[in-house]
Order: sequence, then C-alpha cells, then structure tokens
Amino acid sequence: MLLAKVIGNVWSTKKLDNISALRLLFIQPLGKDLKPAGNVLVAADEVGAGFGEMVIVTQGAPAMQAFSKAELIPIDAVVVGIADNLEMAEDAAAKKK
Amino acid sequence: MLLAKVIGNVWSTKKLDNISALRLLFIQPLGKDLKPAGNVLVAADEVGAGFGEMVIVTQGAPAMQAFSKAELIPIDAVVVGIADNLEMAEDAAAKKK
Amino acid sequence: MLLAKVIGNVWSTKKLDNISALRLLFIQPLGKDLKPAGNVLVAADEVGAGFGEMVIVTQGAPAMQAFSKAELIPIDAVVVGIADNLEMAEDAAAKKK
Amino acid sequence: MLLAKVIGNVWSTKKLDNISALRLLFIQPLGKDLKPAGNVLVAADEVGAGFGEMVIVTQGAPAMQAFSKAELIPIDAVVVGIADNLEMAEDAAAKKK
Amino acid sequence: MLLAKVIGNVWSTKKLDNISALRLLFIQPLGKDLKPAGNVLVAADEVGAGFGEMVIVTQGAPAMQAFSKAELIPIDAVVVGIADNLEMAEDAAAKKK
Repeated sequence: MLLAKVIGNVWSTKKLDNISALRLLFIQPLGKDLKPAGNVLVAADEVGAGFGEMVIVTQGAPAMQAFSKAELIPIDAVVVGIADNLEMAEDAAAKKK
Repeated sequence: MLLAKVIGNVWSTKKLDNISALRLLFIQPLGKDLKPAGNVLVAADEVGAGFGEMVIVTQGAPAMQAFSKAELIPIDAVVVGIADNLEMAEDAAAKKK
Repeated sequence: MLLAKVIGNVWSTKKLDNISALRLLFIQPLGKDLKPAGNVLVAADEVGAGFGEMVIVTQGAPAMQAFSKAELIPIDAVVVGIADNLEMAEDAAAKKK
Repeated sequence: MLLAKVIGNVWSTKKLDNISALRLLFIQPLGKDLKPAGNVLVAADEVGAGFGEMVIVTQGAPAMQAFSKAELIPIDAVVVGIADNLEMAEDAAAKKK
Repeated sequence: MLLAKVIGNVWSTKKLDNISALRLLFIQPLGKDLKPAGNVLVAADEVGAGFGEMVIVTQGAPAMQAFSKAELIPIDAVVVGIADNLEMAEDAAAKKK
C-alpha cells in the first residue's frame, strides 16, 4: 500500500453508474521522510478521510475488495485506513539505548 | 486512478474482436499542478470524453469491470469519469480564514 | 494500454508448456511524440504485428483475456491491435480554424 | 517480488474491518547493492518480520493469496518471507576459480 | 514480460508454507541494449534457469498461472522461459539489403 496525504477532492458529475456514489480524493504519495514522493493519484474514500490526513491507499485488483463483493467495480485505488502514527526502526533503536 | 487529459484518438482497424467496438483515446496523465506528468497511455472511453477534457482513468484488472460482466476483455485502462473540478485542501483552508 | 513499436522477436526454446505456441515480440513503448519512452518489454502477439509497426499493448491481468478463456496463462503483456493512426487534439483544433 | 528492508511500523486505528487485525510494516525496497532503491511502501506482515530485517514482499493481486481464501481482502503488498541470504552469481563464479 | 538476467539466488528459510518449495532468483531487468535497466526483483523459477542466463519474467496476477491451478499462491513474478536469442528489427532489415 501507499502511505499518502489527502490533498483535495475530485468532483465528477459524469461518471460510470457503478462508481457514482463514491467520494473521490486527490492523493499525494509520501516518501520515507513523509514528504511528497511520486505522482498524484485519485482514490475512492472508504474510511472518511479528511483534508491533510495521512492515509493508507490500496491499489490495483485488491482495491476492488474494499467494496461490496456482490459486484466488482472499476476502482483501482482506495483509502483503506488513516495512518495515526509511524514508528521508525531507527527511533525505536535509539529509545532502547 | 489517474487524473489525465484526453490528447487524441488512437485508430486501429486490425485489433482483437472483443475490443473492436471500443473508442480508444490517447491520454496524458497530469500532476498535482495539472501539468503533464508521466508517460502517455491508451485508454478505452466509456463516458464520451472529448478532446482536452480532464478525465479519471482506471487501470489494471479493475478496468475490465467497466464493461459487460459476461465476458472479460483485454483492456487495462478505461476512462470512468470526467473530472469537473478539483477542490484543493490548500484552497479550502484559505477560504475558511 | 501502451502505444509501442515492435523492435524485434524474442526466441525461447525452453519455456512453460502453456505459452510454448506464442510468438513473443520485443516492444519499445512510445511517448507523446512517438519517440521511445520507458523501458522495453516482451509481449505476446495476437494480431500478427510486423517489425516496426506501431501497436497497442495490454498489460497485467487483462492481458490474459486475449487468449482462450478455458485456461488462463502466465502472460502479462499482449499486442491487442495495430495502431494505424493517431489523431492529436491539437491538430484537430488547428484544422477547424 | 521486492527485496526490501523493514524500516518501521504503521499504526492505524481507523481502518476497514477486514484488514483491522493485520500488522502493517513500513518497507524500503532495496537495489542490487542492497541499498535503498525506489519509494517506500506499506505491507502487511504474515511472517513475523522484525525491524531491520531483509524481507521478500509480494505485490498486487497475488498479495491477497497470502491470507485466508474464504474472503479476499484489500491488501496489495505483503511480506511473504524473510531473506536470510543472497548468493550472487558473481561471487559463485569467483569461488569456483 | 520483462527481459532479464539471473544474477543470484535468494535464500529464505522463514516463508509462507504455500511458497516454501519454490526456488527464488534475484533478477536484473534488461534494456534495449541488453544492459541493466530498472530495479532488481525476486522471481520464482519454473524453468530451471541458471546464473547469468537471459530469461523472460511474467509479473502480477498472470504470474500465479505458472503454478498449479488448484491453489493460487502469493507469487507476483516468475521466470516462464529462457531467452535464447533476440532478433532485432534493425538487424533483420540490414540482412535483407
């Protein structure tokens, strides 16, 4: 999954019926230092993520499993969780000293 | 999904039977500043997107779900919506002030 | 899908049984200006593409749908069409003037 | 699969129900020289990997097969093994001399 | 598929049960000039490829189809063939003269 930041909303009135109810977020992937890294993408929101929040984004075929299993929908990226905290190995090692 | 711009049509007379009825668009992905970012691709159109329009493109296995479920077809990118507007978190925060 | 050019044949005598009958092409993806862009790949040919021809290549899980549905095979890229012509939005707009 | 290093834990209290029990790791892919190469990602842990360990990460649709087959879950990266050792072809050739 | 070179073995004693019998190779993708291009990866071997051999690697969901169909396994890259020879379009054209 990607660690990413919610940077906006994407509004679309003309879209396929089976994705019309979804909220679409504009997402910026983050690097190791939590700064922007890599190109932006559009992801469906399934956890109620807000602007500026750090989130976990699932991509590709697994993204479809975040929705009803009755009918697969053409969504290739979805926010599956809000990242509260990152515990870096370096910091954990430093604390033990 | 990708945020992208429709930059052309791709014409193909000799193609597999199960994709022969599809309109194929030439697509330029966009970056955070809505300028070209990343390499072009070819995507099937399922929403009637026009030249120059900003669109949402689903890639990979989920793209197949934009078509009839009766038979999966070898299409790995499809325009699933037209992006009317982008609401950036920065702008929303500025408005509140 | 990728817009790409056929730049060679890849010969393999020792390969898995279920892909042994396929013709494998060496493929160079193209950018907006139709010049090489991105790394080369190997794709199965299902339309009889010739050396130097501009083609449309489907990748990932959808590529498997270009073959018999009876048994899925381990192929992640396939030529699904020959691109005869590209109509660029810019040119179309220029013509209208 | 990626060869990668576990560089941290990702904590998320608000996430989808079907992935709530998973331990999520912060992962740095490695290059040929075993130095960081490519952007970080978040992967579920299925082998009990510890901080700083070198691991093997499966991505995309195959990642879902690391979990119960009863219900597919929206996870696109999973640690499937701990890499104990790398035997490089160059070294093996040198030893034979 | 990728055209790639086998550059080593990856040893893992602690890995998921359903992939424990697989031989894992360290793989370097190649560019048009057959020199290293792109980041290394780990792929399962299904054709008995040796160190230094040029191989064809299938990635993503299709990689799972190289194994028994009875149970899908979490493998996203597999060597499906050994590349004996590359016939480049340029060379073929030169010969005809």
